[in-house]
Amino acid sequence: MRDVSIIGVGQIPVAEHWDRSIRDLAVEAIAAARQDAGIDRVDVLFVGNMLSGELAGQENLATLVADAAGLLPIEALKIEAACASGGAALRAAHLAVGSGAHDYALVVGVEKMTDYLTDGVTAALALAADADYEAAHGITFAALNALLMRRYMYEHQARHEDFAPFSVNAHANAALNPHAMYRQPITVDDFERSPWVADPINILDSAGICDGAAALLIGPTSETRRARRPPVRIAASATATDTLGLAERKDPLVWDVDLFEPHDAFTIVSVLTLEACGLADRGRALKLAAEGRIGLEGDIPICTFGGLKGRGHPVGASGVYQLVETVLQLRGEAGPAQVRGATIGMAQSVGGSGSVAVTHILQV
Amino acid sequence: MRDVSIIGVGQIPVAEHWDRSIRDLAVEAIAAARQDAGIDRVDVLFVGNMLSGELAGQENLATLVADAAGLLPIEALKIEAACASGGAALRAAHLAVGSGAHDYALVVGVEKMTDYLTDGVTAALALAADADYEAAHGITFAALNALLMRRYMYEHQARHEDFAPFSVNAHANAALNPHAMYRQPITVDDFERSPWVADPINILDSAGICDGAAALLIGPTSETRRARRPPVRIAASATATDTLGLAERKDPLVWDVDLFEPHDAFTIVSVLTLEACGLADRGRALKLAAEGRIGLEGDIPICTFGGLKGRGHPVGASGVYQLVETVLQLRGEAGPAQVRGATIGMAQSVGGSGSVAVTHILQV
Repeated sequence: MRDVSIIGVGQIPVAEHWDRSIRDLAVEAIAAARQDAGIDRVDVLFVGNMLSGELAGQENLATLVADAAGLLPIEALKIEAACASGGAALRAAHLAVGSGAHDYALVVGVEKMTDYLTDGVTAALALAADADYEAAHGITFAALNALLMRRYMYEHQARHEDFAPFSVNAHANAALNPHAMYRQPITVDDFERSPWVADPINILDSAGICDGAAALLIGPTSETRRARRPPVRIAASATATDTLGLAERKDPLVWDVDLFEPHDAFTIVSVLTLEACGLADRGRALKLAAEGRIGLEGDIPICTFGGLKGRGHPVGASGVYQLVETVLQLRGEAGPAQVRGATIGMAQSVGGSGSVAVTHILQV
Repeated sequence: MRDVSIIGVGQIPVAEHWDRSIRDLAVEAIAAARQDAGIDRVDVLFVGNMLSGELAGQENLATLVADAAGLLPIEALKIEAACASGGAALRAAHLAVGSGAHDYALVVGVEKMTDYLTDGVTAALALAADADYEAAHGITFAALNALLMRRYMYEHQARHEDFAPFSVNAHANAALNPHAMYRQPITVDDFERSPWVADPINILDSAGICDGAAALLIGPTSETRRARRPPVRIAASATATDTLGLAERKDPLVWDVDLFEPHDAFTIVSVLTLEACGLADRGRALKLAAEGRIGLEGDIPICTFGGLKGRGHPVGASGVYQLVETVLQLRGEAGPAQVRGATIGMAQSVGGSGSVAVTHILQV
């Protein structure tokens, strides 16, 4: 398989985009990525999305987006892997370009969630759980993660406030990111006083409901001299599935990453992800955070643009936002959020309660 | 890109499977394909499905199926391209194996539609139309195809009964297929007396609502000597898109194999497909059918196992059923439906009103 690089990135602010449809969001992010790359050619489009059928009344989304973006009659496919759909779309694109079947692939992650009331969105998100054995009992994703968090607190004698550094870090970084939804810094006090969603998870443990779109243009590394921006190599691309825990992945490069964009849908997910990826020993991720090591100046900066918590979590789009942000870091274009000297970054997109994880390691 | 072959196929009868969930259907088809191939190894799973979120209450479907089929922790992705999802899943798998990233890929197309009343299914199917410019006006897929059929009848001075041979042929072939839902032969009289769905489309112009699952195991052609069954090469694999909305087409009626499995969701779709693929000149597909050339003994046999009309059309699964049937034909295992001497077959899976088409040419 030939080497593949990301040569253009685009994103729109994560927000409640009342005035725009899902197609508008996707088209705008695509235009930004193509502009960034400075390469006109696109051979195939992969759309990462989870809930367009349920929340936007639209399946056949890849064809819709290809049409709206003026890309007909190119090949276009929608990839769904719950909240990991954005990462999964890059994975599929990586196979398409790596195979030699296509040279230039566009990846767009897009989600429009705010046209529905929160109850409806919560029910739609529960489609990522097991319909017969979990959702049928009325359990939500906040509840599933509350079970994980409660168990973690029991096993490792942790208090709720020990999770605060993750949310505080995400908001601090989001404050530096013009595309983030929640740009206000928060304190540990704010975190502790925020209302419960599903005990022990509160509002500030949880990523918000929102709209967004982000896009990548990828191509063969051998051709990247044509690109306007510095190319970023896809050093690793993998998907693994599980019933519950994030167990399977042991990538030797994990230990060398300069920054990590985890799937911080809830603070407990950041904790479990850091431990599953070997960035913290079991039961030690809270300590890592308490010591300030996850901040922009720490040795393992996470959520450098605010993460799902601070930037916002338009579910099927989040994986692509993570990748866009990782690219900006590796290009040295992260502005005030820049991690100094970053040359290797990892982004991980998770679907379900750790049921599926798509991991990319990018390198300059 | 290396050469790829289909080395195992599996299918379950298309029916109203009241006693089984979507996971049961997928698992059974997968087991049959693995048994057929006689190769234990599976590296990646691609699930073709359109409506699991809307009709089965389940997204994250690929992970669910990987889990239920005992395949964890393999890579698993769901591919959605409306009714073309099954073909699109093989397309994605073809890229994965062709690239060298994976050796053995399972493709399963699955759909569970009968747990809902027809109104609900009709609304769900309309998600493949343009939500903002078509579905918002209440148009259904039968209505969209009725517009196409009426226009075709006008342009080519055709009568409704001229479409009968497509449905008669599909039912005649379905009668020979133990996996088909509608195994009763029909006459031109039956066709003409069947009730209207959306004038000029009647019940016997239309594929039915049903449940089903079909699966393929593919691998590098260089390794197929290990397979139990004769391998069938994927000679071509491609996806193309057109406008999602029918109204935007410049010409809505414009769309050397041994057999062809078209996407005959409505008789008018068979007609337009034969003409779009160059198998009939424009306006001449009805004549081709009237002359008996589409039957098993004709020079361009179509719907050899009953097609979507006769076998049934579990939407996201149909594309894989078509491929399973094409493989059986090329292996000489089609029983009474065998097309004599078939060495090249084509299957085409269509989403929306011809908005996306995934085409595979298979060869022995």
